[in-house]
Amino acid sequence: MVDSSNYTSSKFAMPKLKFSRRKLLATASLAGLAPVIANQATAGHHSKKAKATLKKGGVMLFQGDSITDAGRNKKDPKPNQQKSFGKGYAWMAASQLLISEPNHKLTLHNRGISGNKVHQLAGRWEKDCLELKPDVLSILIGVNDIWHGLNGKYDGTVKTYEDDFNALLVRTKSALPKTQLVICEPFALKCGAVNDKWFPEFDKYRAAAKKMAQVHQAVFVPFQSMFDEAVKYAPPNHWAGDGVHPSPHGASLMAHFLLHSIQVS
Amino acid sequence: MVDSSNYTSSKFAMPKLKFSRRKLLATASLAGLAPVIANQATAGHHSKKAKATLKKGGVMLFQGDSITDAGRNKKDPKPNQQKSFGKGYAWMAASQLLISEPNHKLTLHNRGISGNKVHQLAGRWEKDCLELKPDVLSILIGVNDIWHGLNGKYDGTVKTYEDDFNALLVRTKSALPKTQLVICEPFALKCGAVNDKWFPEFDKYRAAAKKMAQVHQAVFVPFQSMFDEAVKYAPPNHWAGDGVHPSPHGASLMAHFLLHSIQVS
Repeated sequence: MVDSSNYTSSKFAMPKLKFSRRKLLATASLAGLAPVIANQATAGHHSKKAKATLKKGGVMLFQGDSITDAGRNKKDPKPNQQKSFGKGYAWMAASQLLISEPNHKLTLHNRGISGNKVHQLAGRWEKDCLELKPDVLSILIGVNDIWHGLNGKYDGTVKTYEDDFNALLVRTKSALPKTQLVICEPFALKCGAVNDKWFPEFDKYRAAAKKMAQVHQAVFVPFQSMFDEAVKYAPPNHWAGDGVHPSPHGASLMAHFLLHSIQVS
Repeated sequence: MVDSSNYTSSKFAMPKLKFSRRKLLATASLAGLAPVIANQATAGHHSKKAKATLKKGGVMLFQGDSITDAGRNKKDPKPNQQKSFGKGYAWMAASQLLISEPNHKLTLHNRGISGNKVHQLAGRWEKDCLELKPDVLSILIGVNDIWHGLNGKYDGTVKTYEDDFNALLVRTKSALPKTQLVICEPFALKCGAVNDKWFPEFDKYRAAAKKMAQVHQAVFVPFQSMFDEAVKYAPPNHWAGDGVHPSPHGASLMAHFLLHSIQVS
């Protein structure tokens, strides 16, 4: 059962959703949002912000699409190992946590899969999230939800994205009520594969992700605001050659911002 | 004149050193060290540590060799710009500071030059450090001081390194008494060009750098300890292919540790 106290509306309580459920989702208004605890991109480097906490022995899971996947070896994935983490922001953040805090005995997993949209996360959520019982769950999803639509490969809209994302988070909080959520803002840099067709539609996906962070009391990591600031110092393709997949410099920046949303205690 | 109160021994006061001065340096004992404020690699991610402080409008300079240079464009170097910073740890750290703290109007410089040993820093110190008047000065130097010796290209010893480094820091504190020093530990990973000939001699260079941090009240960034921990999670060549020059993952890790030695206020 869903503990409705965790949610803005118990209408979102759908703990056993299936792959094809997205057209069936509740369409309740998200008016009356929970207090906003989303971070601001321009918040101080060491200012007090809402943070997720990893205690000694804590477990963290990175979830998402190719940006999170970053070429990880998916056969027999092991926690805390580079090959199972790929070479993206998730590995940079994870390795920095592990190396900074060797006495904390953290267990860090990556289960991002290239090409995923929200409903594909849902299709593998039991095994690739709930069974891992993360104390902190970071999700970065949304670029394929719009991109595959622009390519004519997918008929989902921003409403599909928001509804699917909401259902996934309701399901997660139902199964793992103590898990702290970190929702990363999907982002696009104006270069490579990212053209004018993306806008202003993409901004709605970003807003939906932020709304999900608000509704589900998640920490929000404002990657788009971060990259909007970053392009003042180097061109967009320095941070992400195709506008979507970060370079090591884009990934390092993401890891830095993500880690400022997490405290180890 | 040198304000000897800043130094353990006024014998180190040599404000106007020249390129060839290294054989002339004082050889005073470094016994009676200032209290150790060096950081520990295993200190907590958010624990209280000695940190250098960058205030609004602050200036920081990254100095060193090829690891700091990282392919920067040296013609007409501009602060805060990627092309003038290259693609190494210095740029990762600088960009993370700039983008996290857009309201602080920081001015960040990179003046690392590939192949440099300490005496070569000294040879260009007036223009490439003192004239820039940094509030925070980060120095990473030492790999070439041993490497070029192993290659038969240089006759300096660890004593040369320590004496030269000491003189450079005395000179810096004399000209810029308010500048906060950050001394980065030279490091080597056991792969690529780093073979058994490096050890145990290289450990003495590391110890000398740490001693310099202690003597000159610098914040110490323990990169070797960091990489020693890092190789538990990925092989040495993941962090630095030739054992000396960090990969983007090694650079990102360095930026992370360096930034934990700096606070913005």
